Amino acid sequence: MRTGARRRMGVEERRQQLIGVALELFSRRSPDEVSIDEIASAAGISRPLVYHYFPGKLSLYEAALTRASDDLANRFVEPREGPLGARLLRVTHRFFDFVDAHGPGFSALMRGGPAVGSSRANALVDGVRQAAYVQILSHLDTDADPDAVPARLELVIRSWISLAESTALIWLDGRRIPRRELEIQLVHDFAALAAVSAAQDEEMAALLRRLLDNEPTDGPFSDLAGRLMALGSA
Amino acid sequence: MRTGARRRMGVEERRQQLIGVALELFSRRSPDEVSIDEIASAAGISRPLVYHYFPGKLSLYEAALTRASDDLANRFVEPREGPLGARLLRVTHRFFDFVDAHGPGFSALMRGGPAVGSSRANALVDGVRQAAYVQILSHLDTDADPDAVPARLELVIRSWISLAESTALIWLDGRRIPRRELEIQLVHDFAALAAVSAAQDEEMAALLRRLLDNEPTDGPFSDLAGRLMALGSA
Repeated sequence: MRTGARRRMGVEERRQQLIGVALELFSRRSPDEVSIDEIASAAGISRPLVYHYFPGKLSLYEAALTRASDDLANRFVEPREGPLGARLLRVTHRFFDFVDAHGPGFSALMRGGPAVGSSRANALVDGVRQAAYVQILSHLDTDADPDAVPARLELVIRSWISLAESTALIWLDGRRIPRRELEIQLVHDFAALAAVSAAQDEEMAALLRRLLDNEPTDGPFSDLAGRLMALGSA
Repeated sequence: MRTGARRRMGVEERRQQLIGVALELFSRRSPDEVSIDEIASAAGISRPLVYHYFPGKLSLYEAALTRASDDLANRFVEPREGPLGARLLRVTHRFFDFVDAHGPGFSALMRGGPAVGSSRANALVDGVRQAAYVQILSHLDTDADPDAVPARLELVIRSWISLAESTALIWLDGRRIPRRELEIQLVHDFAALAAVSAAQDEEMAALLRRLLDNEPTDGPFSDLAGRLMALGSA
């Protein structure tokens, strides 16, 4: 027998609702500036009831961050089909979608604001970096055991992930360069970092040649090569 | 009239000694693992006397970090003489000297360990990044007002600083690639990031052409160009 107009939520359902409300607020403003009162109000419940589900703002923040981290890690998943440049461009596009949707929260987290430097938060960020690393590695068609990746290959992939983060942070600070241009630029940066490494190391050179052999003439890697040649001959 | 074998230190002298001792310990192991007892013992004074000069480990850590930040910021200062590639290589070499000397402390700070994520620590790190940015900008011979730098030029410089940080962190994790190779690679990376940006933007292309015109044929930028051409024709 149901009484009352509003259905009562179960515990897990209420927790998930609060996480969603909090994530929305933490995405639009720096988490430091969002109060429990505001979260309660946006969820349509009382402040004490929020504390019933989450002992404090930090635990709610960490739950929201866990959801966001899972979301971001999933965006790096890309079918191993078609040219590498186009795959990387799709991944970069989804990464910027995420950054676009969670701008202020992303900036506060990555810049290590006071309330967000918890060790749990750091572990979640590192988890996303590792997921991105494993994904990208799997696209490079190396036979390398993931636990014994050549040091220079690991450096290129991890450096590029770090470059994607810093490019996104700089973009968020004023959005002075069109997003689409930066997505293409990051794909070009990947090729550039790999080429610099290949210029020093025969193993990287062999890998790069294999990757570029499979690139179509209208893909982002060929586009970069064409533009650099035009630059050199100008 | 002097009595006793050991001279008594003045307050500021003692503070500076403690900062030096703490910095040495924080450089060799993660600051989280260094106790006040250990710092007292290394300085040859009692634990309560350490607290007389610094209210707690965090304030001593921040004082040590302030000294280290000043040191690191100074390493980016380079005379505006001679080819740019060689200047950048000297800066990168001094940066790696610093990273080499302060490895575990540098890693703990940049990876945001629990005791080191204070807002004062973050502000010091940002201060070093800004000092590095202003220095590098001053070497590029642009007429740009430092407060109105073209967005793409700012992005290249700040991205490169971030790349230097992540390369150093990855290097510290096992030191699997010779330091000297990474120093040259970072200088090459700068040219590569600038070239990728120049491939999209006429203003950056003009800047890059001006910079490369002044490079000698035996400098690191020409070295990269030669290696890439060899790679392309192999």
